[in-house]
Formats: sequence, C-alpha cells, structure tokens
Amino acid sequence: MQYIYEFNKKNTGGDATQKNLLGGKGANLAEMAKLGLPVPPGFTITTECCNDYLKTDGTFPKELYNQIDSAMANMEKEMGKKFGDKENPLLISCRSGARKSMPGMMETVLNVGISSETIPGLIKKTDNEWFVYDAYRRLIMMYSDVVMEKAEDINPVDGMGIRLNLEIILNDLKNDKGYENDTDITTQEMKNLCEKFKKKIKATFNIEFPDNPKDQLMGSIGAVFKSWNGKRAVSYRRIEHIPDNWGTAVNVQSMVFGNMGSNSATGVAFTRDPATGDNKFYGEWLVNAQGEDVVAGIRTPNPLNNDTKNNQNDHLPSLEETMPDLYQELFDIRTILETHYKDMQDIEFTIQDGKLFMLQCRSGKRTALAALNMAMDMFDEKMIDEKTMVQRLDPKHLDDILHPVVDPKAEQNAVKLAEGLPAGPGGAYGQIVFTSEDAVKWARTKKVVLIRDETNPEDIEGMRAASGLLTARGGMTSHAALVARGWGKCCIVGAGALKINYEKKELTNGTKIYKEGDFITLNGTKGIAWEGKLNMLKPTENKRFQQFMEIADKYRQMGVRANAETPDDASLALRFGAEGIGLFRTEHMFYGTDSDKPLFLLRKMILSKSKHERENSLNELFPFVKKEIQSTLEIMGNYPVTFRLLDPPLHEFVPQSEKNQKEMAKALNVDIEEIIQRSEALKETNPMIGHRGVRLGITFPDITEMQIRAILEASAELIKQKQTPLPEIMIPVTCNEKELKFTKKITDRVYNEVVEKFNIASIDYKFGTMIEIPRAAVISDKMARYAEFFSFGTNDLTQMTFGFSRDDIGSFMNEYIENAILDADPFETLDIEAVGELIKASVKLGRRTRPDIKLGICGEHGGDPASIEFCYKEGLTYVSCSPYRVPIARLAAAQAAIKYGSRN
Amino acid sequence: MQYIYEFNKKNTGGDATQKNLLGGKGANLAEMAKLGLPVPPGFTITTECCNDYLKTDGTFPKELYNQIDSAMANMEKEMGKKFGDKENPLLISCRSGARKSMPGMMETVLNVGISSETIPGLIKKTDNEWFVYDAYRRLIMMYSDVVMEKAEDINPVDGMGIRLNLEIILNDLKNDKGYENDTDITTQEMKNLCEKFKKKIKATFNIEFPDNPKDQLMGSIGAVFKSWNGKRAVSYRRIEHIPDNWGTAVNVQSMVFGNMGSNSATGVAFTRDPATGDNKFYGEWLVNAQGEDVVAGIRTPNPLNNDTKNNQNDHLPSLEETMPDLYQELFDIRTILETHYKDMQDIEFTIQDGKLFMLQCRSGKRTALAALNMAMDMFDEKMIDEKTMVQRLDPKHLDDILHPVVDPKAEQNAVKLAEGLPAGPGGAYGQIVFTSEDAVKWARTKKVVLIRDETNPEDIEGMRAASGLLTARGGMTSHAALVARGWGKCCIVGAGALKINYEKKELTNGTKIYKEGDFITLNGTKGIAWEGKLNMLKPTENKRFQQFMEIADKYRQMGVRANAETPDDASLALRFGAEGIGLFRTEHMFYGTDSDKPLFLLRKMILSKSKHERENSLNELFPFVKKEIQSTLEIMGNYPVTFRLLDPPLHEFVPQSEKNQKEMAKALNVDIEEIIQRSEALKETNPMIGHRGVRLGITFPDITEMQIRAILEASAELIKQKQTPLPEIMIPVTCNEKELKFTKKITDRVYNEVVEKFNIASIDYKFGTMIEIPRAAVISDKMARYAEFFSFGTNDLTQMTFGFSRDDIGSFMNEYIENAILDADPFETLDIEAVGELIKASVKLGRRTRPDIKLGICGEHGGDPASIEFCYKEGLTYVSCSPYRVPIARLAAAQAAIKYGSRN
Repeated sequence: MQYIYEFNKKNTGGDATQKNLLGGKGANLAEMAKLGLPVPPGFTITTECCNDYLKTDGTFPKELYNQIDSAMANMEKEMGKKFGDKENPLLISCRSGARKSMPGMMETVLNVGISSETIPGLIKKTDNEWFVYDAYRRLIMMYSDVVMEKAEDINPVDGMGIRLNLEIILNDLKNDKGYENDTDITTQEMKNLCEKFKKKIKATFNIEFPDNPKDQLMGSIGAVFKSWNGKRAVSYRRIEHIPDNWGTAVNVQSMVFGNMGSNSATGVAFTRDPATGDNKFYGEWLVNAQGEDVVAGIRTPNPLNNDTKNNQNDHLPSLEETMPDLYQELFDIRTILETHYKDMQDIEFTIQDGKLFMLQCRSGKRTALAALNMAMDMFDEKMIDEKTMVQRLDPKHLDDILHPVVDPKAEQNAVKLAEGLPAGPGGAYGQIVFTSEDAVKWARTKKVVLIRDETNPEDIEGMRAASGLLTARGGMTSHAALVARGWGKCCIVGAGALKINYEKKELTNGTKIYKEGDFITLNGTKGIAWEGKLNMLKPTENKRFQQFMEIADKYRQMGVRANAETPDDASLALRFGAEGIGLFRTEHMFYGTDSDKPLFLLRKMILSKSKHERENSLNELFPFVKKEIQSTLEIMGNYPVTFRLLDPPLHEFVPQSEKNQKEMAKALNVDIEEIIQRSEALKETNPMIGHRGVRLGITFPDITEMQIRAILEASAELIKQKQTPLPEIMIPVTCNEKELKFTKKITDRVYNEVVEKFNIASIDYKFGTMIEIPRAAVISDKMARYAEFFSFGTNDLTQMTFGFSRDDIGSFMNEYIENAILDADPFETLDIEAVGELIKASVKLGRRTRPDIKLGICGEHGGDPASIEFCYKEGLTYVSCSPYRVPIARLAAAQAAIKYGSRN
Repeated sequence: MQYIYEFNKKNTGGDATQKNLLGGKGANLAEMAKLGLPVPPGFTITTECCNDYLKTDGTFPKELYNQIDSAMANMEKEMGKKFGDKENPLLISCRSGARKSMPGMMETVLNVGISSETIPGLIKKTDNEWFVYDAYRRLIMMYSDVVMEKAEDINPVDGMGIRLNLEIILNDLKNDKGYENDTDITTQEMKNLCEKFKKKIKATFNIEFPDNPKDQLMGSIGAVFKSWNGKRAVSYRRIEHIPDNWGTAVNVQSMVFGNMGSNSATGVAFTRDPATGDNKFYGEWLVNAQGEDVVAGIRTPNPLNNDTKNNQNDHLPSLEETMPDLYQELFDIRTILETHYKDMQDIEFTIQDGKLFMLQCRSGKRTALAALNMAMDMFDEKMIDEKTMVQRLDPKHLDDILHPVVDPKAEQNAVKLAEGLPAGPGGAYGQIVFTSEDAVKWARTKKVVLIRDETNPEDIEGMRAASGLLTARGGMTSHAALVARGWGKCCIVGAGALKINYEKKELTNGTKIYKEGDFITLNGTKGIAWEGKLNMLKPTENKRFQQFMEIADKYRQMGVRANAETPDDASLALRFGAEGIGLFRTEHMFYGTDSDKPLFLLRKMILSKSKHERENSLNELFPFVKKEIQSTLEIMGNYPVTFRLLDPPLHEFVPQSEKNQKEMAKALNVDIEEIIQRSEALKETNPMIGHRGVRLGITFPDITEMQIRAILEASAELIKQKQTPLPEIMIPVTCNEKELKFTKKITDRVYNEVVEKFNIASIDYKFGTMIEIPRAAVISDKMARYAEFFSFGTNDLTQMTFGFSRDDIGSFMNEYIENAILDADPFETLDIEAVGELIKASVKLGRRTRPDIKLGICGEHGGDPASIEFCYKEGLTYVSCSPYRVPIARLAAAQAAIKYGSRN
C-alpha cells in the first residue's frame, strides 16, 4: 500500500486531481512542484493512512515507516541537510490537509527536529542563537499542546491546558522584565524559558519532552491524524456537511523561515481581489514573521502592492516597494497559477533570507460579487467557457448579491462606532454579544452581531448564528474574514480602536461604552460600524448579474415560480425572473393588523355558529378575496398562478385581545363569554396535524365554495377584459383522492355557474393538489385521478415523514446534528433518502395515471440548490420559492441541467 | 340483461349463494322456494338494476318492463288472482333487500294494487270492507311517505312530513271519537279517512294519489331503489363499512295478511335462542297483526312456545297453545332450515286465514355467548366441522363474553328503577340521555345510557355512542334489541312501567323522577335497570370458551402478546393466553397519583437543570424502575417482554398544582417561579411530533442509560436466581438508523458492565425498534442493521401517514365518514391502502437486511380482527394488544390461518 506521495524537484507522485487521497493542500503542493514552482520538498501521507490509523485506535501501518524513511532521504538530498543531524539538521513541519479546506480546524506542528543534539548545529548554521531557541520554544509549546496533551489533562474548572500554562510563564517573564515584544527577550532568557517549559511539561504529564527528532515526527503525524476527530473539526464538519470518513492527509515538509531577519518575510495572497473580483493581485505580508502571524491577525499586515492599498494600510510598505524583485517573481507565479488552474487562487508564500518559497495554493474563497465578476471576466478573457462560467457562481451565495445593504441616507445621520476592514460585504444590524455561546443563544430569537478581539475556530458556531461579525484585530485574510466571506456574511475586521471587556460584556471605542444587547449596524462593504439599528435597502439591480442570469437561463430546463400573495410580491417575483406563482397562500391576505376589515370578517366567519351566520360572513368576505386574487392574476398576465385554498387551523385567526373579542361579540350578537368559548373550542392539541387544509374544506364546504368562486369570478372578469389569466386551484393537506373528488364536484358546479353568469366560453384553469402528507404520496396514482398537477409541499411532507414538528425541533436538532444522527436539518436541505423516496414514488405513481401531470415543489426546499438538483433529476416541471430566492433557483436549475445533461 | 329472478312453485331462478345480485332476502326467498317451503310467489329485481337506475338518475332499464310483466303473470297464475283486476285483484309488497342486512334502513311499500277499481272486488273476495279500507289507508300512508314525498317537502321548521300529517288526522279522529285502538274505527270512518288522506296529499304535493296499480308498482320499485341513498341508509353503511356500490335489490311479492282476523297471525322466530345459544325454538307472534307490528314493538308480542316463556310474557298465549298444528308445521320448517343452512336462522312468517307462509329467512344475529354455544353445539351435533366452528365466532364480539357484568353484591342493596326484556347481555352504567344527538355529544367525554320509548333507525348513531340502551316498549326482536345484539351492546327493552317526557328530559317509573345526567346501571343479562352507578365485575372464566379457544389455537400460526405494564396486567394477559408482552410502556409505571414517590422522582429528574441534578434524580429513580421491570419479567417467566423506553414528551409529567410545584421547588432548592418556568419551557406546539421517544434518549443519554441498566440488571438478578428472563429493549419514535446506532452503543457498554458486575455469562436480550414514523418504514433496510426486531406502532404510524392528530380528529372525522371520504376511522381499522403499504415496504426492506427479523405490531390495531388478518398475510411474527383483546387476537389469527392457509 502506497501511503506516501512525495513532492520534490526529482520525484512528484501526486497532482491536483488527487484531493481525495492527498487532501487539498497536498494535491496542490504536488501540482505546484510539477509546475516547477519553488516548493520546499516534502511528502504527503494519504487520507487512507489516516483512516487506517483512526480505525486501529492509533497504530501506524507497518509499511509506513520504510516509506517515510525513503521520502525523508529524498528531502534531505534536495535540501542538503539531514533530519536529526548534529551538523546541518533539517527541520520539518507537519500540517493537516483535508479533501475540503477546513481552515484552522485541525492541528499543525512546526520546527519538528529541534533537540539537544541538533541545537548546536542549528546555531552554527544560522549564526542566530536567539532564533534557534525561539524556534525551539515554539516547537515545545505547539508539540506539548497538540501531541502530548489529552482531553483529560485539561483542568475541568478553568479549562486551562498546557498551552495557556506555558503562555503564562512567557508573559510572567515579559511582565517581570517590562518587555513589550517577544523579540525583547534575551537569548539566555529564551534558553531558560525552554528549560522551564520542559520542566512544566514533565510536571504536568509525568514524561519528558521528546528529545529524539524521529519521535517528534511520528508523534506529530499521529496528532494531526487524531485532530480529524477533535471537537472543533467535528463541529465544523457538521456545519459544512463533510462526511466523517474522508480523513485528513498529513503534509510533511521542509521548514523554511520567514522570521530569519529583515530579508525574510511571509505572506498570503489572492490572484484576484476576493471581495470585488477585480483582476488585481491582492495580498498581505509581514517582514520577519512566520505564516501564522498573518493568518492569526495578531499584527496588522502590510499590503502586497501599491495597487491594492486602502485607507487602513496605505501608510505601510508594500512588498512591491520593499522587495521589488521577489514581488515580480511572485507576480509571475500568480500568472502561471491562474493560467494553469483557470481560477482565482489563494496562495501562501515565505521568503527565507531573500529566497521565495510557495507553501500553499488553493482555489480562493470569494464573495458572491467577486465570484460573479471573476466568472464573467474569465469568460471574457477566454480563460473558461460558458458552461464553466455558469457553474462558477454558488447559488447558495447569491443571497449576498441580492440581499439588503445599509441605507446610505440613514448613514448620513448615524453615529460612527468604529472603522475596520470590509471583510464581508452587505449590511447587517443586530444586538451585540461577546461570546460564541451567547450568539447562538440570542440568535434563536433575535438578530445579533458577534464582537470579538479576533475569532478562532472555536467561535465557528457563534459566527454562523450571528447576522454580522465585528473584530478588533486581524486583516482581510484573518480567520474571521475568511470564514465570513465563505458564508457570505457581513463582516468587519481589524477595527483597532475598539476595546472589549469580556467580563463586563462591554465594548468601548474610547469615547462611549456599548453594552451587551445594544443595537449596532455594520456596513460590511465599507467597513464601518454604526450605533443603533439603521434602515436597510433592497439591493439595486446589478446589470452584470442580469447578463449572467440570462446566460444561465439558456441552459435551464425546469421552470421557476415564486411563492407570493400580494401584488407587490408578484411584481418583485417577476423582476427576479419568476415564470408564474407556484404558491399563493390564501390566508396571507388576512395577515394584517387587528383592525383590518378582512381579518375581522374572516374571524366573524370562523366564529359563526350556524350555517346561516357563516354564510353571511362568507358573503361579506367574498368581494375582498376576489379583489386580492384578481390583482395578482392581473399582474402575472399569462403566467400561471396557483391558489392554495385556506390551509392553517382556524384557531390561528381568532381574536385574542379583550377589545377584539368584545367587538366580535357585538358583531355576532352574543356575549363575550360565548366568543371566548367558541375560540377555545377551536384549540387543538397538535394543530399541525389537526383540522386544517382540505379538512376544513370538507367540514365547511361553503368556505371552499367561496374561495373557488372568488378565483373563477376574478378570472372571468379578466377574460371579459380580454386578459388571459391562468388560475390553478390547489387543495392543501390532502391524504385521500376522495377529498379531491369532493372538492372537484364543488369546483365543477361553481365553474358552470360562473361561466354562465359571465357568459364566457371557458376559463382556462387547472385543478390540483399539494402532496404534503405521506399518505398522499403513497397513493398518488389515485390522487392523479382528480389532480391535474401535484405540488410537493416539502415542509409538511418533511414534518410528517420524520414526525418532526418544525416548531418544536429546537430542543433536539442541535444534538441530532452534533451526534451525526442527521447530516443536516431536513427543513433546510431536502432529505433525499426518505422524503425524496416518497416524492419519487409519488412522481412515478402520478405519471402512471396521468402521464402529462404537472409536477412542482413549493416548500422552502424549492429555493435550496441541492434540493433543486434533486427536483431536476426527478423530472419536476417547476420549482417555486420566495421571490428573493428565484435567482438562486434559476441558477441552481441551470447548473443541474449542465451537470446532468438534458432530460428530454 | 336479466334483471329479474322469479321465485314460485314452478320456476325459481336464484338461490342462497346469489346474495350479491339478489340481496340477502331475495336469495333466501329463492332458496326457501327451492326447498319447497310455503313462500308467497314473487320475484327479485337485481342490485345491478338498482345501480343502473341510480346511475341514470332514476330511469328504469327498458328491458325491465317486459320482464316484470312476464314475472307478474306467473305470480298471478300461482295465486289465481290478477294484479289490478276488478274481480279478484292481487295485492303485492315491494321490499328492499341488500347483500348485507340493513334492518329498517330502507323502504317498504305494502298493499300495492288497491285502487278505486280493485276495492269492490277486494271487498267481495274478503267479505271485510273494514279490512280493505284499513289496508288502503296503510297503502296511502306508506306510499305518500316513501314514494311521493321528496326531501324538500319536509317542513324545514318542525321537520314534519306527510306521514306525520296523516297520522295527526288519524289521531284527531280517534281523540274526537274517544277511540283507543285503530280497530274501534268504523268502516265508514275508515273510508272517509282514506278520502281525507288523499285530499291532504293532493293539497301537499299538488298531484293526485295514483289510482293505477301499475303506477303504484313502478313508483314503489323506484322508491325502494332510491332509499339506498337515503340519509339513514348511508349513515348505517358508514358505521357498518358497507360499500356504496353494492346497491339494493327489490323483492316484489304477493301479499299475505296476518291481520285478516283471529285465524290470522304474524311472527318472528329464531331457530335457536339468539341470546344464550340454547337449542330451543325461540320467537314472538301476534294474532291478527301485520309483520311490522311485531318488529316495531308497538304491541308487546306473545311467546312462540311454552318452552321459552319468561317472567314478562308467561301470562300470554303461545302459538304452540293457540294454533298447535300450525306451530308443528313451523317447527318442522325450522328443522329443515337448520339442517339445510347449518346455522341458526332468523325467520318471519305470516298465517293468513289458517295457512302458514314463510316471508323471510336469514342467518340470525346473536350474542357472542350464543354464537359460542351454538358453534360448539353444532360441532357436537356433527352439523359443522371444526374449522367452521372456529370461523363461527366473530372475534369482534368476543368482548361481550369477556367484558364486565354488574356486581351481584352491589345489586343486593341497589334500588330497582325498572324491569324489561334482557335484549343485550352484560352490564353497563352511565348518565341518562333522551335523544340520539345528546348521546353522541355526551359520549365524547362521558358514559351514557340512551333512553327511548322505542328506537328507530334514526337513533342509530346515538345507540352506537351509548354504553347501554333502555327502551320502554318493544320485544326481543324489536329494532333496539336487534341492533344492540348485533353490536354486542348491553340493552334492556320493553320496560313498560317507564314514562318518558322528552320535552323536560325526564323519566319516571311512577314513583320517582330521573333527570338527564342521572346515573343508572343496566343489567342486560337479567333485564333490570338500577338507580345510580353500581360496581362492575370482571367476567368469570368461561370453561366452554376456553375449550373453544384451545381448538382455535390449533390453527393459529401467529403469536399473540399483550400490552401490559404492571404485574397485575401481566398475570391477566397470561390468563387470557398471551405468549409474551409485546409492549411494556415504561412511562406507565409513573401514572400514579400526585403523591406517589416515583412520579415525584421522575418530575424531579425532568425539571433538573444541570446534568448533575439530573444524575442525582436518575440514581434515585433507578431502584424503583428496576423493581417494576423485574416483577413483570418474573411473572412472564420465559416469555419475552418488550420494554419500550420512555416515549411521551416530558411536559406531560410536570407538576400542575401549586402544592406540587412548591414541593418540587423545595426538592430542587429553587423558587417556585423557576419550577413554573422550567415546566413552561417544556411546552410544545405539537407535542405528538415533538421532543419525545428516542429524541429524549439522544438529548438526555443518561435517561436512556438508566432505563437500559434497569432492564439488564433486573434480568441479571433473575438469571442469578436461575430464572430465564427474555427482555427485549425497544426504541420508540425512531426515524433514522443512526438513532439506533447511538442507543445500541450505550446498550452494549451497559451490557458489558452489567454482565461483569453480576458475573454472569450472558443475558439473552434483543434490541429493536418501533416502526411508527413513516421515515423509519421507508428506510427499514437501514433500521434493520441495528434492530433485531420491528414492532409496528400503527397508532403513530397512522397519525403521521395521514397527518391526523388523534386528539384532534373529532372535529372532522364524522364528516369524513359521512361523505365517504374514509370508509372507516383509520385508528380503529388499519388503513391497508397506505399505512399497510408502508408496513409491507418495511417488512420487505427489513428482511432484505436481516432475513430472520422478528416482526410484531403493538398499536391498537393489534387487537382489531381485520388488521390482524393483514398482519397474518404480511407474515408478521406476532401481534400485541391489550390483555382483554388477547382472545380476540388469538381467534382472529386462527381464522386468518384457516382463511388463507398455512404461510410456511
């Protein structure tokens, strides 16, 4: 079994296609080595080895040892150094690298190979004793934390581990001596520090810090493998839906140092601007530093070139100015990589003593706007073809292009709280919280902005829950910025004026104090945080985006409709490209304020006791319902509009306040007790599976009739005006074909009456049903006897199939995701395994009875790209989603058609 | 198309096997005619003709007219009379007759053929003018009501129709003249009455009463057909699950008259006693009366023979005494019929002027006790074989043999309210109501006894809803008695001392007044009604029944277990023949009173906030839970016991009263507000699909662990005592195989700990799951990876598959049944179409993964015969039901094996 793939000047086994085996980092290191770029030699231990190691509870495969020896020998040859050698020792790094990037979620050990035997040689070779002991104390800190410490070693009371204990020793020294920076520490002090560290480690773990480079190496490899199952990594995998069995590779690579003096440096760069997509080489660097220093955001980094300086950093020296030759070399590599990968790359580099090394390259995370611009630019540059261009934009991230921004007018009068780097564009407001836990907790009911000095992987869940992020430190490539951009979340980083007091849960910008719960607003596009809750604006139309969508639509084969109930929403849906309304929820027209007349009439109808009382109320309601229906039909022109008859349980509508109850009592000429009693009688134990939908239509056929008459009369009047309405009548919550038969009988009668009354030839309407109850799916052959169309109501279908009340899953869904019982919340992403199975069965059965049956989906999954892909594969006619998600659905449908080919 | 099957001495086309085509009555009339019994000649118009007639909105098929003419000619020949003839006119009856008996639910018209032309001839022939006009006024009343009146003719305010209007005219006359009986009316008055009736009809319908016998005939046939879709018939079909498309036949038959003087009579009889099964000819008769008079219970009838006289009627003359020769002839016919049909028959006869005619025979309704005794007697008499014997007892009616009777001790001191005929055996108590509507309404929350003067088909729904029935009039073959016996309901009829005031909703027995809502108790076996609510006793063991069940068990191939949670229930289940416990609901051990310690500890555990608090409560609970489990395991010996882990949502258990809340606050050392708050936090919008079952076990794995440890330690202790417990651990509300994986991991760990702690070799236990969520059924191949058994929880599976909350269906289920949207309440009878489909799929998938998987059902359908048949066909290993239903399940399983043959 080959567990190792080398990358060096002589022999590079892997390439960029082998991400599953070598992880992203390893595969790309191999690819760069093949391209002849200056990659420090090394090798990748495969993900298969990781899985074997974890399955055997931490035993390395026997073959591995020889393979490591052989690969190490090749590294040593190329570097002209020997690992563990007294004279000229090679130092190496061990880094994780999974199939998909999991930034900061797994472990890294650097400077492996420093020992009492190799230190003298290192000092001689580097002529820098301080540097060697600094490297050694870094190794000790990292190794003791990553390799030696076990979960049970952490103090259960204060949560403190070895790393923090060692940091306290370091800080005590600095405080004693009054040092500000690590570089103030003297060589002797550094040497003493290493000894102190090792003593503390002995005292803590009862074993010596390993002084054998080989032991250090194998310990580090094992620790990286184990970190695949660390708490942070597992939590991140749940959120990102990464399977547990992928495993991580380990990259063992010769160390190069960016912190060997003023002729050394380290940096991170993107081949194009990841925020805007501009075709500009964009990056950050630090002189005399290790890579972590840039990513961790501890020091504010310098701009890469003059072209991309901004307000925050234009006083800092760029690499272009400081080391022009090396900058040019890096710029050439940028061109090679983009030409090769045909996509924007995120790269890491180190300059050791005037020599450039490439440490990483990968497809760069980007904002949706940047993805759009890059895709269209690269197409214009003939770098990619049209299909690739369409595939480049992740539909999930379209939200960012389409979602709100802070109203500039509101900003004119707003009080500025802080300025920072615009790390995630768009606008967001919320109440401030200071910990990840609080963010998660508060976000269940409120919008929050998470405020941190800097973020780290432990903050992931809070960052996800927050509407926006604000950090006091860090640059555009810091953890917070990378993660926020990946999620398309509004984010400002490096707002250096802010001071956070975690204990008091307070924030100050020097002049004012802001407490937990105070509202603030972020403009992530400009990098400004404002006091209070500012007004948000809908996105202005983006011309380039519209061009892009027109191209995508060429490939799309599945219709996209919107869920909309008001003329405003209908217009918005049309502007977003909807080809009809797939779900008009009748009840929404009553979701007004208490004082609204229609709601009052609906309540009166609901609380009627006799058929006679109810009939009167229905007659009063009729003109209003008809008008609402007519306006929407009119706006939608000759696009179809699917009207779903009354769906929710009646109790949702009854008057709650005494004032409203009194008013109703008067209207119905009964006393208020009677009103309260009638309302109580409508209460249900499990309203979600109670008296609703078609069940109301069967017990109160006059309510059904009123709605159907309103739809058909509204249509008839439009036909009289030479319009061509296409109404579709949809029956909700059906579980039995006889419910449809019952309703169709009413529909047929009303249809004949309306056609006669208006003296028209016909109304072009369709009669159909939601498929949202498992039983309806199971007997869809029968449902199709009466239904000309099915619309899959995947919200309810998911509720019934799982037996999950959507209102109540909060108490267990987190545990289900954390324990990997579910890969994802099935209300967000369609459960293909079972809900999908029922849909498949329904499609098959429905077509058996009615081969040309129209099939749509109108649950919230209608706007979820993965679910849309499923719908395409199953041959659905259309998907329907909220107007804002229509572009997402259009793009996802186009991508599915490109991915799976035409289904005709 | 042959629409008509004749029965007469010369030519009888049909026979008893053709019930589908000829209806039960028609098929048996034909069969009797073939046996040479004295049946008045006639013919049956088929159910196919009915369906054609109803489909064409009331048009007779063309061929029908000729076929009627030809059949009428044969009747006329045999009777020596002519229909519509002036001299010697034939009168005929038109009666309905469906495939399955629907007593009194459809229409009948008698005396068809009386007209101004035929009256003189009739008078001449009968020499009884009074009789002729009485027959005429009966025809007029019946025909105008059944044939001429339409629904819209009924007065919408007082609900009065023509029938009542005519009766008022009749009663006015009697009141004016001071007549008590109809027979007091003079011939001239009777003649005038007929004219008055016809005038009233003309005034009401604006058409003349038809004076042409042919018109009367066709009108009557059509009316009988139409009555298939009458309100009463439709309602009865819903209750009895009779399909709408069966249709009714019409029997047109020569009239014979039991009311032609003291040499005429009419009666109803059973070939054996329908209440006890005794091999005694049992019946009732009236001299000089029409058949309706016996059935309607207007006059208290005489006993058929001396053998079967009882306290109520031993002063009345029997037929055996009054007309010994005719009685002997009837007795011979009884023997012929039983020998021929090999079952107890219910017969109707009429004696016209000293000549016996058979008007009907059919398989007789009987009590369960009678069915048991008859089946075993007939087997002993070698009339039927063993399989037939087993099939003879309807499992649904076993309840009656097994259910409570009134405690004789309580009766010793009770106050007698009334005595009547013991029409339906067993005991019942309840609050009295006086209308069918009230019975239905009250019965939703209370036990009621329905009290009526006499019942009629319009009372059906109230009779069904009531726990018992008590009528002031009618005999053992009255409507109330027949229906109650069919349903196995406790019933007393003909308690003549009672006077009912419907307006005041009061009842008096002459000495006391009882008001609506007062409690009374019925002893339906003795025919005594008692004041108040008396104690009930469990049925004593019935030796004969046990013999019967032993024979049935020889044929049974499917296991029967019980749902039981207490040692008492477990013992009861064993006595009833259960072969294990299929469902031990852990939570039931906490369903005590508020002051119970275990409930208190459970509440404490539920309201614990920290893991620590919860652990303490769990430790306190553990010994109690273990003890309960151990006692049941011990009683069940080496039968398996399936323990279902905690199922309901936790909110069900929290303390509601202030006292209990205070106590809990003290126990948990928090204030009462905190307790209320924690309780509130557990409330759910839709608890049925909320945080329950395995979902609790995942969020609180320590609760799961405590239960599993209790089961395994209880077993281990029994093993130590050389017992052989067979515990089965069952996980509820699962929807995903990973929930099982999660729980199995805990189980495996605890198992190892217990085996080690008790130093035993092993515990023979099984790990399995409920299949009660549609998703679990759909992915059963995966569920079977971890589950060694499936138990179908058809209650919940029905809830989720239909999206019906069982707690909330009350508001629409009636309309669903009435509108034929559902044939039956799916919680009573398994919905084979869809829920059954999911079970089938689950069985198939489960076996694919684990061919020897054990399969059971433990929803309430486990005790429903039709559902048990389904389970047998699908190859389930066992059914589990409440202890009282175990014999029902055993019998149903035996019958399924006989019906479908061995499945091995």
